[in-house]
Amino acid sequence: MLARDRTALARLMTLVENRAPELPAIMSRVYGRTGHAHVIGVTGPPGAGKSTLADRLTTHLRAAERHVGIVAVDPSSPFSGGAVLGDRIRMQGHFLDPGVFIRSLSTRGSHGGLARATRDMIRLLDAFGVDNVLVETVGVGQTELDVMRLADTVLVVLVPEAGDAVQVMKAGLLEIADVFVVNKADREGAERMQSELVQMLHLRPAAPWSIPVVLTQAATGAGTEAVRDAIEAHRAFLAADAERARRQRARREGELLDVLDEELRRRLEQGLGAHAADGLAPLLDAVRAGTVDPYSAALRILEDAPTLERLIRRRER
Amino acid sequence: MLARDRTALARLMTLVENRAPELPAIMSRVYGRTGHAHVIGVTGPPGAGKSTLADRLTTHLRAAERHVGIVAVDPSSPFSGGAVLGDRIRMQGHFLDPGVFIRSLSTRGSHGGLARATRDMIRLLDAFGVDNVLVETVGVGQTELDVMRLADTVLVVLVPEAGDAVQVMKAGLLEIADVFVVNKADREGAERMQSELVQMLHLRPAAPWSIPVVLTQAATGAGTEAVRDAIEAHRAFLAADAERARRQRARREGELLDVLDEELRRRLEQGLGAHAADGLAPLLDAVRAGTVDPYSAALRILEDAPTLERLIRRRER
Repeated sequence: MLARDRTALARLMTLVENRAPELPAIMSRVYGRTGHAHVIGVTGPPGAGKSTLADRLTTHLRAAERHVGIVAVDPSSPFSGGAVLGDRIRMQGHFLDPGVFIRSLSTRGSHGGLARATRDMIRLLDAFGVDNVLVETVGVGQTELDVMRLADTVLVVLVPEAGDAVQVMKAGLLEIADVFVVNKADREGAERMQSELVQMLHLRPAAPWSIPVVLTQAATGAGTEAVRDAIEAHRAFLAADAERARRQRARREGELLDVLDEELRRRLEQGLGAHAADGLAPLLDAVRAGTVDPYSAALRILEDAPTLERLIRRRER
Repeated sequence: MLARDRTALARLMTLVENRAPELPAIMSRVYGRTGHAHVIGVTGPPGAGKSTLADRLTTHLRAAERHVGIVAVDPSSPFSGGAVLGDRIRMQGHFLDPGVFIRSLSTRGSHGGLARATRDMIRLLDAFGVDNVLVETVGVGQTELDVMRLADTVLVVLVPEAGDAVQVMKAGLLEIADVFVVNKADREGAERMQSELVQMLHLRPAAPWSIPVVLTQAATGAGTEAVRDAIEAHRAFLAADAERARRQRARREGELLDVLDEELRRRLEQGLGAHAADGLAPLLDAVRAGTVDPYSAALRILEDAPTLERLIRRRER
């Protein structure tokens, strides 16, 4: 993969998607090659034109000879109203471009699995050598917000009929947006929405980065250069910002917690499966039968260091 | 709360929503009083009329003098197109009925926090003494599927224009449905959708429970008695089914794993925060600075039992 073999990259991504047990070992080898790619998140309600905008941005980035990775995150709800993003982008002709790598991700795993898989895919693309990673989500629910926290620059794409600024705040989008895009700007209400957003942004406490609100018609390409320029401006801002180092440190610490947590959960699952050998069988049977509740059992295990240690000891596969 | 004090119940639910550290201790005391309530999940795409149907079902259950708890789960996306379910139900007059307890839940916490909070809320309502818990979700994404796995009987509510049977399969709804409801049955295509679903169900391997497909107009109440009857039939089926005990045992074991995992994560967070005292500071600093990657650091901590033990030891608050 480090020799830019696309097939190897695709295989590693499948391991990531399946949360394979060898991931920590693989990712620790990849990690040293990362940190160069700028990660652009694209989110917003279904039907806002996110994938069309992502397609236009890809065209601009390719015109500047940037290598681009695209991760289309779909939390598996075909009722959410959007096309499957990856599919749409494929249709635009970038699929055959060797400077573009596209991957869809729709893991059903719970417990933050989708955000973790996205993070690892970003790392793989970064190590592979792409200059920009575009991460798109279908909607704006809890999972999608988690995913957007992985991006350096977050675009929130809205359309005039999506609602008003109050809904933007309720969705938690104000907290994560670095650039607002009002797409389908030929429709009625586009300028009203833009001025509402600008007013809302003026109500915030003063911040070093001033969030722009860009009008676009992604379908024709109008305004999309301005979006590209806003992304570049934000990238330059981040590079010069003293805050960035602090945020990166916090992000790395959070990642350690996440990796520890995921690996502990995996070992617990294995350990509970292999309980018979290590004296936990009576407690587990009591939990299964309902005579001991899971909360008491968990506290009992956690207070008993040797039992816990046996439970999370690495096992041969 | 066990003396049926609604204020006490509401306070405990706030602790659940905030994932308070005292939860395992509280829930272990509550657990022995649970196991009586029948949990009905209501899911489906936005705009399918789930909350109107839930309202009608509540009326039917109240007419039979059942006590009802309602948990309206909203993963915080105001763009999902639905009304806030709890609010709508409140408007229907059940809010003043002392036999109905309504709670909305829209935690932003990640890592399965919403499903865990829902499970604990179900347990609290069960211990409080309700006969039925209705759990509703706004949409049908990953989080919502996790939530539905907590229900004894899952209603999947669709409308004629929601799409076709293929979308139902893609959304993973076939795997979780115990009863299909085609709502807004006065609209064009309702009977076509019903027959598509019936055909799709016939293609499945033979199963002891035959999933009914009920046509309703929740707004007028038409067909909602048939939904109630289907729920009761499924409840009777579960009570007689030999599989149920096996599924309950597996569910309890899964819950033990979940509680262990959540408590371990909480302790890890605390432990990493209090690292300075226990010799982990150099490794943590290296992770923050980016000189040691989080994956290697995690593996190093996991292989060193004393360090791990110090990290997850219970701390005074």
